[in-house]
Amino acid sequence: MHGQQRWNYQQFYDRSRQLASQLHHQGIGRGDTVSAMLANTPAMLECHYGVPMSGAVLHSINTRLDATTIAYQLDHAETKVLVVDAEFLEVAQEALTQANADPKLLLYCDPEWKGFKPGAALPAGYEDYNAFVELGQKDFNWLQPVDEWDAISINYTSGTTGNPKGVVCHHRGAYLLALGNVFTADMPKHSVYLWTLPMFHCNGWCFPWTISAIYGTHICLRQVRPEPVWAALNEHNVTLLCGAPVVMDIILSVCEENADIPTPSLAHRVEFFTAAAPPPERTLARMKNAGFNVTHLYGLAEVYGPAVVNEWHREWDTLPAGEQAALKARQGVRYLPLESLDVLDPSTMKPVPCDGTTLGEVMFRGNVVMKGYFKNPQATEEAFKDGWFHSGDLAVKHPDGYIQLKDRSKDIIISGGENISSIEIEEVLYKHPAVAVVAVVAIPDDKWGEAPIAFVECHNDKTASAEELRSWCRENLAGFKVPKHFVFTQIPRTPTGKIQKYQLRVQLKKQ
Amino acid sequence: MHGQQRWNYQQFYDRSRQLASQLHHQGIGRGDTVSAMLANTPAMLECHYGVPMSGAVLHSINTRLDATTIAYQLDHAETKVLVVDAEFLEVAQEALTQANADPKLLLYCDPEWKGFKPGAALPAGYEDYNAFVELGQKDFNWLQPVDEWDAISINYTSGTTGNPKGVVCHHRGAYLLALGNVFTADMPKHSVYLWTLPMFHCNGWCFPWTISAIYGTHICLRQVRPEPVWAALNEHNVTLLCGAPVVMDIILSVCEENADIPTPSLAHRVEFFTAAAPPPERTLARMKNAGFNVTHLYGLAEVYGPAVVNEWHREWDTLPAGEQAALKARQGVRYLPLESLDVLDPSTMKPVPCDGTTLGEVMFRGNVVMKGYFKNPQATEEAFKDGWFHSGDLAVKHPDGYIQLKDRSKDIIISGGENISSIEIEEVLYKHPAVAVVAVVAIPDDKWGEAPIAFVECHNDKTASAEELRSWCRENLAGFKVPKHFVFTQIPRTPTGKIQKYQLRVQLKKQ
Repeated sequence: MHGQQRWNYQQFYDRSRQLASQLHHQGIGRGDTVSAMLANTPAMLECHYGVPMSGAVLHSINTRLDATTIAYQLDHAETKVLVVDAEFLEVAQEALTQANADPKLLLYCDPEWKGFKPGAALPAGYEDYNAFVELGQKDFNWLQPVDEWDAISINYTSGTTGNPKGVVCHHRGAYLLALGNVFTADMPKHSVYLWTLPMFHCNGWCFPWTISAIYGTHICLRQVRPEPVWAALNEHNVTLLCGAPVVMDIILSVCEENADIPTPSLAHRVEFFTAAAPPPERTLARMKNAGFNVTHLYGLAEVYGPAVVNEWHREWDTLPAGEQAALKARQGVRYLPLESLDVLDPSTMKPVPCDGTTLGEVMFRGNVVMKGYFKNPQATEEAFKDGWFHSGDLAVKHPDGYIQLKDRSKDIIISGGENISSIEIEEVLYKHPAVAVVAVVAIPDDKWGEAPIAFVECHNDKTASAEELRSWCRENLAGFKVPKHFVFTQIPRTPTGKIQKYQLRVQLKKQ
Repeated sequence: MHGQQRWNYQQFYDRSRQLASQLHHQGIGRGDTVSAMLANTPAMLECHYGVPMSGAVLHSINTRLDATTIAYQLDHAETKVLVVDAEFLEVAQEALTQANADPKLLLYCDPEWKGFKPGAALPAGYEDYNAFVELGQKDFNWLQPVDEWDAISINYTSGTTGNPKGVVCHHRGAYLLALGNVFTADMPKHSVYLWTLPMFHCNGWCFPWTISAIYGTHICLRQVRPEPVWAALNEHNVTLLCGAPVVMDIILSVCEENADIPTPSLAHRVEFFTAAAPPPERTLARMKNAGFNVTHLYGLAEVYGPAVVNEWHREWDTLPAGEQAALKARQGVRYLPLESLDVLDPSTMKPVPCDGTTLGEVMFRGNVVMKGYFKNPQATEEAFKDGWFHSGDLAVKHPDGYIQLKDRSKDIIISGGENISSIEIEEVLYKHPAVAVVAVVAIPDDKWGEAPIAFVECHNDKTASAEELRSWCRENLAGFKVPKHFVFTQIPRTPTGKIQKYQLRVQLKKQ
């Protein structure tokens, strides 16, 4: 479903084969890259099928990226075909002027886009995507991978810690993680999935393939705004949606902004899968009241999106809300198709004890781990040192085996020989009513080697002084963990909303 | 759960590792056969884990078989260890006297068995299974398969068409079919499964592994009788059970035999998966009234049990009961993890048209197809001719792609150059109120080459004359399909209840 558009699976299959057939006739084949800069539209779903069915590799581009980053990706991925949504034409054009790549260009004009002009002339060099697809053969004998370990997709990391790397995923992993989602989400056949998670983000966590495996309904959505989300939730009996915590805020904003309008009611419980950050207690409570069950996932592009789930125990339902939130903040246990998940000491490669306090690095091994980084053997080798994929995330293991992230390895602060988790400090500061966003990094300290410094954004209508926050931390943290400085500033983020701590460090070095 | 026994997954895992460790210390390793002649008990579940975890191959023995057949299997499978349930000791002993194999012997004494005598002396040569397991190490570093295509199990065909063949299944297929069951059954996590399907039958269709994948509850059951089945259904909120149509009869017999007792009520809808024969319309209606939803599956040992499902369309719910039964009688579409299912002309290997009438052979290809027949390269080669597994079952394809069995290839009757489906005639005769069981085979005919002959068992309280059945067939069948003879007799069956048409043919040849 997309706006007024309705396709059944036969039509979807036909269109995907037509796309594959047309790519094939353009000379696109095994190992070639087809890049897609698309919103969550039927065209994006088709690309997730038609591109692999031509033997090619799908490169989904984050539509919020700047032209320079996109140009870098097009060149690095050696893009042969670029499908662009008309909404993103300008940025794409700018990227193409910067790039050396000279791909075939297809323009997707979505009637659901508010800038859509029926019959408008195509920009020079572009072919209409729909016309292109419609010329394809519905009976095209599409290509299965020669080897199931062959690449199906390439996704570029958002570069919180440096240059973007091209994460190459294989068919086998995508197949298994797509099935793993069904297990994790308890999705019955004919489930209804609302596309609030961008499909460009880790291929929508493999959900483009998951939903089809259970004959589910894909509900496309160009833009995650409160009204269309609630309209879809209620009109189509949506059973599951995914997104970063910000999507929960968008959903809940309806209730907040219109105090005289009651919370929209859901006819049945809706599952919400979130990742990127533990869902805060207050958000959990409000989501529950609105009819959602929130599940916390964790993963990285290198493990196809989510590969760890905060598997909920029924008996936890009766605990106080605060304890439930604390349990839900843990990343959890491995996805069914992931063979091994552990927290290891990277120097000895021994698992840390299940004591909830010893830090180690989260590592993955098995079918749902990437092939490697494209054209980057050194980074690949480092990432796979000692036979495990090193996530770079630091965590503890609890006595029940659930893992909990404590920090990125680069974000740990070493003060007087003691490891300080910047996340722990951030968690404390997030509980202060005035704090909206916080990022804690290390600042060089003559006495202790390093000390924590906190960058803070306050809520629009609230303020707090450094002294106020300092005493707040003193009440809630060990003394050596209290930030030495508090800086009130706009915190730099990636286009996907991830906080860029390295930018903060760059700022500190300049000072 | 087993009677009063309760184990959680930690205990189950510990026990499985202990079993694996003990087998390992007995010198059992990769490729060795461990045979299990067990009822649906915790020991049988443990064997489904502990045996593969030692690197060995599990050989589940049909506990209803005669000693000679079991002896054949023990020798052919080269059994190194035999686990016997005390209930089946006598037959096992007899088999061992006939066999050349000289396995290590373990006796499982189940307190739920009515012949159980606590502290009874063990028969000579046997070790107590539980004592054996308890000596094992809980931290045993169990063996993963070297190659995922390595054997996990061997199951002997029931031999309706000749000598039993040892169907060897691999880890990869078992893993994928186990997951496929979850998709087919829409099983949420923590489902409750009642063991009415024998685990010796195609390894319980892989459900020993399926249920654990969703943290489900295994409810063991020694014997499929109405009272314990209904007790389990109601006490444990069972969500799914499986079995041949005879299990439905057993369930429904409670309502029938006690006319003054109302049908036991179920608190929620229970899924029932059946295979081996299409569920009759009357049974479907009665199961529905009792609170069950019946799904029709189809498969063979060579495809890990069920690999085809009569996937139900929601809009069919509103059709008249007769039409629903006719739709449900079709075998259906492929299981999710099965790559290819088709009905092909075995001479040209071309798919038959989707016209619902053209007969072809059902063939399978993909991950959930066996490795081959143990020590039988010729049968393996024949079965895999032209790259497809030949099922020997004849079927048509309907316009919607659903397949429907018409006969075993050996059971087709060729009369005057026309193919006659023995199943079609049987279906007509089953609708006659007096007919309980019927089997139609070919009898040589001077004029037509072959003609159909029907062997009939009537219900205890009913009778019908040959003339009556003949006119019944004339009303409902084309003239050339009406059986030439009707024989009222006890119909021979395998220990699993399958009708042995070849025995009937042997009888005919002797006459």
